[in-house]
Amino acid sequence: MTSPEVFAARRARLQQSLTRPSVVVAGFARPRNFRANRYPFRAESHFLYLVGKPLEGAVLVIGPDGAVLYAEPPDPAEALWGGPMPSLEALSRELGIEVRPIDALELPGPVALLPPQDRESACWLEERVNRPVDAGGAELEGADAALADAMIALRLRHDGAAVAELREAARVTALAHAAGMRATRPGVRECVVRAAMEAAIIECGMTTSYGSIVTVHGEVLHNERHDGWLAAGDLLLADVGAETRGGWAGDVTRTWPVSGRMSGSQRALYQVVLEAQIAAISAVRPGASFREVHRTASRVLVHGLCDLGVLVGGEEELFERGAAALFFPHGIGHLLGLDVHDMEDLGDRAGYAPGRARSTAPGERYLRLDRELEPGMCVTIEPGYYRIPFILDDPLALGDLASAIDRSVLDRLSDVRGIRIEDDVLVTESGSEVLTASIPKTIPEMEALIGS
Amino acid sequence: MTSPEVFAARRARLQQSLTRPSVVVAGFARPRNFRANRYPFRAESHFLYLVGKPLEGAVLVIGPDGAVLYAEPPDPAEALWGGPMPSLEALSRELGIEVRPIDALELPGPVALLPPQDRESACWLEERVNRPVDAGGAELEGADAALADAMIALRLRHDGAAVAELREAARVTALAHAAGMRATRPGVRECVVRAAMEAAIIECGMTTSYGSIVTVHGEVLHNERHDGWLAAGDLLLADVGAETRGGWAGDVTRTWPVSGRMSGSQRALYQVVLEAQIAAISAVRPGASFREVHRTASRVLVHGLCDLGVLVGGEEELFERGAAALFFPHGIGHLLGLDVHDMEDLGDRAGYAPGRARSTAPGERYLRLDRELEPGMCVTIEPGYYRIPFILDDPLALGDLASAIDRSVLDRLSDVRGIRIEDDVLVTESGSEVLTASIPKTIPEMEALIGS
Repeated sequence: MTSPEVFAARRARLQQSLTRPSVVVAGFARPRNFRANRYPFRAESHFLYLVGKPLEGAVLVIGPDGAVLYAEPPDPAEALWGGPMPSLEALSRELGIEVRPIDALELPGPVALLPPQDRESACWLEERVNRPVDAGGAELEGADAALADAMIALRLRHDGAAVAELREAARVTALAHAAGMRATRPGVRECVVRAAMEAAIIECGMTTSYGSIVTVHGEVLHNERHDGWLAAGDLLLADVGAETRGGWAGDVTRTWPVSGRMSGSQRALYQVVLEAQIAAISAVRPGASFREVHRTASRVLVHGLCDLGVLVGGEEELFERGAAALFFPHGIGHLLGLDVHDMEDLGDRAGYAPGRARSTAPGERYLRLDRELEPGMCVTIEPGYYRIPFILDDPLALGDLASAIDRSVLDRLSDVRGIRIEDDVLVTESGSEVLTASIPKTIPEMEALIGS
Repeated sequence: MTSPEVFAARRARLQQSLTRPSVVVAGFARPRNFRANRYPFRAESHFLYLVGKPLEGAVLVIGPDGAVLYAEPPDPAEALWGGPMPSLEALSRELGIEVRPIDALELPGPVALLPPQDRESACWLEERVNRPVDAGGAELEGADAALADAMIALRLRHDGAAVAELREAARVTALAHAAGMRATRPGVRECVVRAAMEAAIIECGMTTSYGSIVTVHGEVLHNERHDGWLAAGDLLLADVGAETRGGWAGDVTRTWPVSGRMSGSQRALYQVVLEAQIAAISAVRPGASFREVHRTASRVLVHGLCDLGVLVGGEEELFERGAAALFFPHGIGHLLGLDVHDMEDLGDRAGYAPGRARSTAPGERYLRLDRELEPGMCVTIEPGYYRIPFILDDPLALGDLASAIDRSVLDRLSDVRGIRIEDDVLVTESGSEVLTASIPKTIPEMEALIGS
């Protein structure tokens, strides 16, 4: 567990940037099929960053002069169902912050706030701040925008405690991927592998940091189905991450052969993606532009696809014309922290340096991060190769790149629908460290583990 | 999969009770820590009952003259991420209902509706019906109340397809409990057993129907923590159920010894609870009052606790004075169907027969069902014994029953903190059928499986 001093230090740093009182809510659990049947409560990330404990319905009021936590006092009638709750005094000692009952919350005039993610919390806040609050709204102005920028300044570069949490998320994410490889065999459904991976996470007292993708149809980038059957010739793509009890995310993708042995075409394409990933990771260092990291991977991908004969033409010209995006239409990665897309609740404000905006180019429109990297930032590096009908069979999407694809070669590689290789990479003072380096990634490493 | 004819028949039956157009929404996925990171979508139960497919954002408009489903047409830009979606024409063929694009939704004047469970859907509805919609609101009036009563009339007694789904939920719930018993051993944490149980459910392509309770502190009735350590002398209480892909719930509790062998005191108290459960199940039959089923279990419990010497006095008098509730403060069970507490979104309207209301007596205030049973109803039967400090150490809660407890006997039984035994029971024409009968429940059956 992270010590209370860490959160006190974070709050102290935030206070230095604040000119007016600010409100950071924890939020409420979301109902599932009826009000009393709820999804597990997950507090808003900004609250977790500053307080460290998921206290449903609690509110942190923080300003230049100090911070007070408003929380629900223990309810004796609820103790029968939920067990004993700490008193507010005990909570105050545990968290190292002044705690008052939530009913005593009185906001001192205009406050800054960050919109919470669900409408329940937004409505609750609206009543207290007397102005509209847009659930999940990322269009911020004035003091709200200044608060967001102050939070981004804190959360972009992870402190030691945050890095420790990310390492712990990586450790358990590694257990999940090893369990997934071991559980893989032809003739079972995707959900069997998913079960093994999620069980490894639940066993550690953690949860998944996002909806697991475990699919033989990796060409569907965010495939949420798990009912497909694993056939011996398939590649299985697993994009699964653990979230620590403190709320910090792992985010890793591996792609491995169901049979335990890749075919020649699978090996060839896997190697191309792996080389692109290694090159991109090598490009991660302080001062490097993340857009350039993306372009590094795309360049290696074009080179590899030219080598295989899938693409025909001059490599540099093909790269400049956006040929990589035909097979790799998403960005090379994103910020990682308390959120799997860290601070995406603030739109592109965290991911994009001031003054920058999304490109409209096919290869870069989905790039979620465009900043110069700094020590303490954590990013994912996740190139891929996908055979996506909506792109490869669509004259409009292909444009004049249609003639650059050798269809007969592509057809010979048709036992590859989707490959993604993703690691979590911490920017260090001298370069970078792959937090998820222990997860099998080379073909022999994975083949040794599958079905074992 | 349930055939489209089943849903058509349900809609036809509902239409016969409707006098005005009614709106049944599917709802929206709930955001987790940011808008794009969502909990798995779970459609509103009334929608699932009538349509059978969890179509996010879809709306069924049903009235005396027919039914139309309004749904989101496939979005080519989303196909990259979510894969190909069926056209509305294909959806119409699959579901056997007229389907129109959601943007074409026009409501014909005043409509009846059932409040959805989250505020996102409620706000969406408000804009379309031009009146306030209270998320999760169970205080219904006029046409809304009539629609609720029509749905209750349909859903109280399960049709053949519903029973088939409940059997399937029971089948997978049984796999989970067997896996949990096998995974139990001293020295691991509760989450290790929870992982094994949930993996058994995920492996079948299903999800849990409610937050799993897997705890050595069974005296906390809805304990959501899973971080406790299993010691050899502990009983482990597991309240875990599977939900089918169609949305139907299993809900089963077993309590077993961590070491694989119950102590003498554990055996004695377990046997008392088991006898109460068997007696209550025997009382389940058409025409029986569920309140009487509750009282049957309470009576057996008082009898057993008198036998053990925990309670001292005349059994019938102790029963009438509410002594059972000292150790069994919740109700004997509830309706089971698409919701684990079926139709609890409508408050007590489904659980309580017209004109009846909750009792204030300690033993019966948490009773969720007070109706005469009818063939096709499905209920849980779940008596328990709990050693709850908030009750047993509270002079106010004990009242004049304090003198009925022999503390020295109770102390000798202190290695039991919580036992609950719960099965899913279908009311049949001639009596009842335990849908979850295959799950080990006797002490020898469980002991044979633990740690195996």
